[in-house]
Amino acid sequence: MSVEDRRVKRLPREVREKQILDAAVQVFSEHGYHNASMDEVSEVAGVSKPMIYAYLGSKEDLFAACIRREANLLMEAIVGGVDQNQPADMQLWMGLRSFFEFVAANKPSWRVLHRQAISQGGPFSEELVAMRSRAINLVDALLFRSATRHGVEEQHATKSTEAMAAALVGGGESMADWWLDHPEVPTRVVASWLMNLVWMGFGDLVEGTVWQPTP
Amino acid sequence: MSVEDRRVKRLPREVREKQILDAAVQVFSEHGYHNASMDEVSEVAGVSKPMIYAYLGSKEDLFAACIRREANLLMEAIVGGVDQNQPADMQLWMGLRSFFEFVAANKPSWRVLHRQAISQGGPFSEELVAMRSRAINLVDALLFRSATRHGVEEQHATKSTEAMAAALVGGGESMADWWLDHPEVPTRVVASWLMNLVWMGFGDLVEGTVWQPTP
Repeated sequence: MSVEDRRVKRLPREVREKQILDAAVQVFSEHGYHNASMDEVSEVAGVSKPMIYAYLGSKEDLFAACIRREANLLMEAIVGGVDQNQPADMQLWMGLRSFFEFVAANKPSWRVLHRQAISQGGPFSEELVAMRSRAINLVDALLFRSATRHGVEEQHATKSTEAMAAALVGGGESMADWWLDHPEVPTRVVASWLMNLVWMGFGDLVEGTVWQPTP
Repeated sequence: MSVEDRRVKRLPREVREKQILDAAVQVFSEHGYHNASMDEVSEVAGVSKPMIYAYLGSKEDLFAACIRREANLLMEAIVGGVDQNQPADMQLWMGLRSFFEFVAANKPSWRVLHRQAISQGGPFSEELVAMRSRAINLVDALLFRSATRHGVEEQHATKSTEAMAAALVGGGESMADWWLDHPEVPTRVVASWLMNLVWMGFGDLVEGTVWQPTP
């Protein structure tokens, strides 16, 4: 065994897995699931194919692991970006801004998460449905607290805020896809458009009333 | 050739194609693209497999034809439901209501269009992207007319209304998916939640200000 081999082997498992997942996200986002090859993942990661299979399983398992990790990173970025002591509108604004900033800083993540995973369907749908549910629950909780604090009856608020949260998450995904084709628009601006759409509504916007964050 | 064979053969092509497409939408929506069999389409349609292949091509071609037809029906339902002489808010309301009514009345269509086609990806993505573009353009034109009439500068309105239209279409899709799991909510109610979210905004809603159609 050469000195280099021993050095390579001594890396802790989590470091090695991170190398593999980073490479896999890059390769999957560039070529799509079907055209991505484990050879390229191995090359980009600098980790042998047998070791990839040993650590993370088949190509299908690897793709599912990518979705899971990127979904967790996205959710952590959103939750971490929100100050729960702020009023509801500021919390929503912080969440939307964190979301678009994550997409901008992690375009391969988003492509794997959203475009690739959705277009593969099948075994990956569950991971995606789980991630969307978490995002919807997060927004729902915010809208629900905010609505019931203002006297909307709980019974009525439950369903309508959940449906609106679903619409907001779908709207965010769709706007992020739009933004990938218009990267010249600053993320803060796209985030403010979505914030204004869902907080002020188009009725106020056309009258020139806009929402702005408190300084 | 029996009398019945001759009678069957005499049906005009468009009638036969409609039978095939109706059956295919039903079979694809029940089993998904991969598990759907041409044998079942043939059985449900009452049309022989060779005739299906002759008229509409392979299973892939048939699925693409289903997406195209259902997308056209959906767009026709939305456009047909909107009275262009009404103010912008009423037009949006009519469009949203027509959309949810279409989904409710054509659940297999929606499943094929949205859930199946998205989860298949690949060759069907183009059909879907084209349909979404048409929907986004439709909403964009409405928002743009409405915004510029109220003095928003054209330059600014172009991009923001297009992005907001993308968000609205994504929000509608996501809410329709939510509704499939909550069919006990009347379509008029779901439509009004989305209308209120995008027209009034959540800021107004929590204050108890809601949008209602003029009688």
